Amino acid sequence: MKAVRFHGRGDIRIDEIEEPACGEGQVKMRPAFVGICGSDLHEYTGGPVLVPQKPHKITGATHPVTLGHEFGGIIEEVGEGVTHVVLGQRAVVRPTIFDKECTSCKLGYEYCCENIGFIGLSGYGGGLANHIVAPAEHFYPIPDTISLEAAALIEPLAVAWHAVNISPFKPGDSVLVLGGGPVGIGIVQVLKMQGCQKIIVAELMENRKQLARDYGAAHIVDPRETDTATRVRELTDGVGADVIFDTAGVERALNEAIGACRTHGTIVNIAVWEKRPALRVNDLMYSEVKYTGSALYDESAFMNVIEALNHGQLTPEKMITAKIKLDEVVEKGFDALVHHRDAHCKILVDVQA
Amino acid sequence: MKAVRFHGRGDIRIDEIEEPACGEGQVKMRPAFVGICGSDLHEYTGGPVLVPQKPHKITGATHPVTLGHEFGGIIEEVGEGVTHVVLGQRAVVRPTIFDKECTSCKLGYEYCCENIGFIGLSGYGGGLANHIVAPAEHFYPIPDTISLEAAALIEPLAVAWHAVNISPFKPGDSVLVLGGGPVGIGIVQVLKMQGCQKIIVAELMENRKQLARDYGAAHIVDPRETDTATRVRELTDGVGADVIFDTAGVERALNEAIGACRTHGTIVNIAVWEKRPALRVNDLMYSEVKYTGSALYDESAFMNVIEALNHGQLTPEKMITAKIKLDEVVEKGFDALVHHRDAHCKILVDVQA
Repeated sequence: MKAVRFHGRGDIRIDEIEEPACGEGQVKMRPAFVGICGSDLHEYTGGPVLVPQKPHKITGATHPVTLGHEFGGIIEEVGEGVTHVVLGQRAVVRPTIFDKECTSCKLGYEYCCENIGFIGLSGYGGGLANHIVAPAEHFYPIPDTISLEAAALIEPLAVAWHAVNISPFKPGDSVLVLGGGPVGIGIVQVLKMQGCQKIIVAELMENRKQLARDYGAAHIVDPRETDTATRVRELTDGVGADVIFDTAGVERALNEAIGACRTHGTIVNIAVWEKRPALRVNDLMYSEVKYTGSALYDESAFMNVIEALNHGQLTPEKMITAKIKLDEVVEKGFDALVHHRDAHCKILVDVQA
Repeated sequence: MKAVRFHGRGDIRIDEIEEPACGEGQVKMRPAFVGICGSDLHEYTGGPVLVPQKPHKITGATHPVTLGHEFGGIIEEVGEGVTHVVLGQRAVVRPTIFDKECTSCKLGYEYCCENIGFIGLSGYGGGLANHIVAPAEHFYPIPDTISLEAAALIEPLAVAWHAVNISPFKPGDSVLVLGGGPVGIGIVQVLKMQGCQKIIVAELMENRKQLARDYGAAHIVDPRETDTATRVRELTDGVGADVIFDTAGVERALNEAIGACRTHGTIVNIAVWEKRPALRVNDLMYSEVKYTGSALYDESAFMNVIEALNHGQLTPEKMITAKIKLDEVVEKGFDALVHHRDAHCKILVDVQA
């Protein structure tokens, strides 16, 4: 079968590999649509980051690994002892693999697992292949109301959902979102469905500004044209944003955001940083702002997103800016996202096309 | 009268100035013992920082200003309309001056006041003078159980008290304190009286290590000898510290502390940074650690410290490593703290000696 595999920085190949067999307690799926994620891009341009260079502690996988961790598909085989999914059923994959013996997992924070793995980065194959076999617990049935395109967006929406969940956001709050990429737009959607009236998005690119508006951002700030802190204070009667989500990971933008945050407000980092930012800690201190991070999501966030899609509370399809074929994944997928980010939000690979 | 005044960086003089008159709603005090604070040192070595270069918004003061904001003394005159203190009474000064019309004050966070001023830095004179006159609200009577030496420690203890207050600390938690200076030692005392059993202090200097032990630190970590994160995890069954207080403001130490903090733990910054630290934000994110700051204290923290001293729950006198005369303030006070920090914790100036 075909599989898109990461061999090293800048080296992603479409390989012919052996089709995996489905064993006891496992499920075999035919992936449908697979999203290309920011962390896939990090591997491509600066990796290996999450791709293991020696066998992964839980999965034993090492590179080359099959990519793709945002996807759903059709169940094509069910191993012995598996009862929660059936042949031919549509399902989505929760890719996170936990080391239940680590300290974080024992404390109840599995999403902060110290030895975390991911289907599509560090084991059990990935979505960018004709078939995948993984332990049954990773497969969640989805109702017919959810398209297989939307299924590919469940994982990034779960990241957004969890970030809002662990923040102190309450309806009535003013919120600033730094960056209008897939996670930023996901956060806008989650905030909107939770009743947020004042969403401000800081973004440079026109297509992403428009997407943010379409999903309900009340105001767009372009940091090239105006100082974010000044503008956010104007928009919030001088108080500042109650909660700020940073999905951009740009030092200057984050430091401006510290000035845009209200006294005792919260800044949640979801961005992956390539360089440690030099933070305005004194200003953070004098305003007693909390700076924290959101890592991944737990099972309830993942299932809440499925339910919100089922009830039409989240309608993420507009985030999809291109659908490409498996053979086009490097040129029209990875390279397009690296070189033409201004034209894209989420690119889906139609694996079976 | 004599007054110790800040004229500019490295330029502190003992000036002869006019004795202030006590007007309506004001109180005149004869300061007794006055502590030299880290922020005084910041002014001396790198200022002006908090000393206003143009008239302060609330007090109208500009440099040269009289220094000294940690002190008590004897009330020597009470202006018309003042009833809560009487002539000859012992009292302590709460030096913080608020702009009640600022956004932070209106939100209820006066200790984050955007135009904050301080007696002894930006108005109404300071403690390092034979007399001081200020609005009556700054003077708090103290019971006879509290020595005038201890009264000079109420202000830094209130800083420590507030930092513990705004943290999620609960008895049973393991706590790491970075730095064993006056605020660090203050935090150790406050934690101890609130039932903390496992206090770990990271400190380089021998005298401060001993002081931390004396006040109840269970473990001392010397970052030159051992990796703080490794050692703290050893001491906490691999979990990490629940709460970390940073009173040191050293980039490397803070980044090690991120590794020493448990998943979903909290790091509270109380240090004033001379340079923006480059933070390990990715690690903060993956462990969902909260990083926040503690600025000053509110009135209740200040009064709680007075009550804790009154009940003998705080016994800070051992922090006093020298008592000097007003005439010796530069050489045996400021210069001693700059050049012989390893010999000192808190130096008090005996103003009337």
